[in-house]
Amino acid sequence: MLDYKLLEALITVVETGGFERAGMALGLSQSAVSQRIKLLESRLGQPVLTRHPHLQATPAGRRLLNHAQQVQLLERDLRRQIPALSEDRTRLRIALNADSLATWWGEAIGAFCQEEGLLMDMVIEDQDVGLRRMREGDVAACLCSSDQPVAGARCIALGNMPYRAWAHRNYIARFFPDGLTAQAFQEAPAIVFGPHDQLQHRFLAQCGYHGRFPYHLCPSAEGFVRLAMAGMGYGMIPDNMIGDNRTTLAVPEGELVNLNQAVTVDVPLYWHYWRHGGDFMERLTRTIARAGSALLEPIR
Amino acid sequence: MLDYKLLEALITVVETGGFERAGMALGLSQSAVSQRIKLLESRLGQPVLTRHPHLQATPAGRRLLNHAQQVQLLERDLRRQIPALSEDRTRLRIALNADSLATWWGEAIGAFCQEEGLLMDMVIEDQDVGLRRMREGDVAACLCSSDQPVAGARCIALGNMPYRAWAHRNYIARFFPDGLTAQAFQEAPAIVFGPHDQLQHRFLAQCGYHGRFPYHLCPSAEGFVRLAMAGMGYGMIPDNMIGDNRTTLAVPEGELVNLNQAVTVDVPLYWHYWRHGGDFMERLTRTIARAGSALLEPIR
Repeated sequence: MLDYKLLEALITVVETGGFERAGMALGLSQSAVSQRIKLLESRLGQPVLTRHPHLQATPAGRRLLNHAQQVQLLERDLRRQIPALSEDRTRLRIALNADSLATWWGEAIGAFCQEEGLLMDMVIEDQDVGLRRMREGDVAACLCSSDQPVAGARCIALGNMPYRAWAHRNYIARFFPDGLTAQAFQEAPAIVFGPHDQLQHRFLAQCGYHGRFPYHLCPSAEGFVRLAMAGMGYGMIPDNMIGDNRTTLAVPEGELVNLNQAVTVDVPLYWHYWRHGGDFMERLTRTIARAGSALLEPIR
Repeated sequence: MLDYKLLEALITVVETGGFERAGMALGLSQSAVSQRIKLLESRLGQPVLTRHPHLQATPAGRRLLNHAQQVQLLERDLRRQIPALSEDRTRLRIALNADSLATWWGEAIGAFCQEEGLLMDMVIEDQDVGLRRMREGDVAACLCSSDQPVAGARCIALGNMPYRAWAHRNYIARFFPDGLTAQAFQEAPAIVFGPHDQLQHRFLAQCGYHGRFPYHLCPSAEGFVRLAMAGMGYGMIPDNMIGDNRTTLAVPEGELVNLNQAVTVDVPLYWHYWRHGGDFMERLTRTIARAGSALLEPIR
């Protein structure tokens, strides 16, 4: 068997972002953590961590992390069968898109986390990048818009998040006085989540515009809405973030105006998880599938 | 002079995250972008980009990016003096904390961006990490909680964001039936923004608790509130995100309960900017300083 004390040191260094913090979390000295990492590296014959540009696992280190995470999942099943086993709590690392986390995700897994005593480590990735992190062994599961499972994993459809373009009333009056013309799109600043975000391009293509457009980059779901409200640009906001119902951090009514009622951009969401994640992962998956049916739109 | 066409290719590859996308943004073929990068590297005698674990600038590449960004700022001043110069729009890259972006930031810079036609590239970093990115030349300015300027930069105080601990009523009844005891803190899951987030530790220390505690990791300001509302944990939420006024994406009244009325954790915010950023950066700085006085609490 592998020496899991060494793997635990690696997990904790990566999770806390430093040797000193890892030591605090594990109740060890910084140098004890450092020795465990060195021992792991000497057994492996290669480094598991790089320090530049910042502290992170090497490809070999990531493979170890992925393995350790699957072992932790299986241990969780075992502890369920043998409750007398120690009660230390592992965190399940999941990649998901920011807009899910900002809207339906909490409601989807809140009760499950409470019942199971599950702690989550949520990593925000644009829909298409999360899957790469899963392939690299960095996360145990991934919520994203791809329906192509990675080798060794399963993939199920959860539902659809429809998006529309919103902007402040004054912004529309200023930048689109003659409607959604090509010239207006060339001048009007958009708000884009990040370099991998293609929602804006898809919206513009559906409006018949294929040229360049100016944009702000804003990697925050709530910041997105705030910038739109401040008149800085127009942005693609999911339907479930707009409205005035009790369970939504609602955008105040009337502040934002729909840029093009006729155009909706769909983001279908899929849940990817390792086939050998064990019984616990199967139950989590059933919970999420149920929540998807209840809280998302059907995939068109 | 440097060949700025090459630097522009580097900036665009890093900003768009790929050669093909950079080509689309610059109106060039992918191979033309690739040739520019190769030429830059052969002149420099070292790589400016690495591809593993993902596409990013090397330390030398980052120094070039930093230089190019300062040149762009100066060009902006020049275009103001000579409006006939071409109107291409650069994006100003700023590191800031997620909670500022999710609350007061849009209101602070919305009018300025509209008047100046400024596009922003906002990078979310925990208060203490943004400054490192500034030192590395990755951003032109930084909003963070450190009052120590980096070499070559200035630092001004903007104001204070006070935080309190909030949780769902049912969560408190379940995990804190006997109040804020050490045993309860050992068992009750917290919600922590990321490995560099020390707000939770500061809150617990002010409550007189210094031990370990279980926590979820959730790198999303809005997700934070959603998880608390779903009863998954208690979390430090800034005062300006709680409330029911028109300008706030308000937490519905009565859903969340203050865990400890007596404890407030302060996060003072400072604005860091390069001393030679030129007139444009000075005006942006004055705008942000005014907004800080109006929208933040005074630093205690």
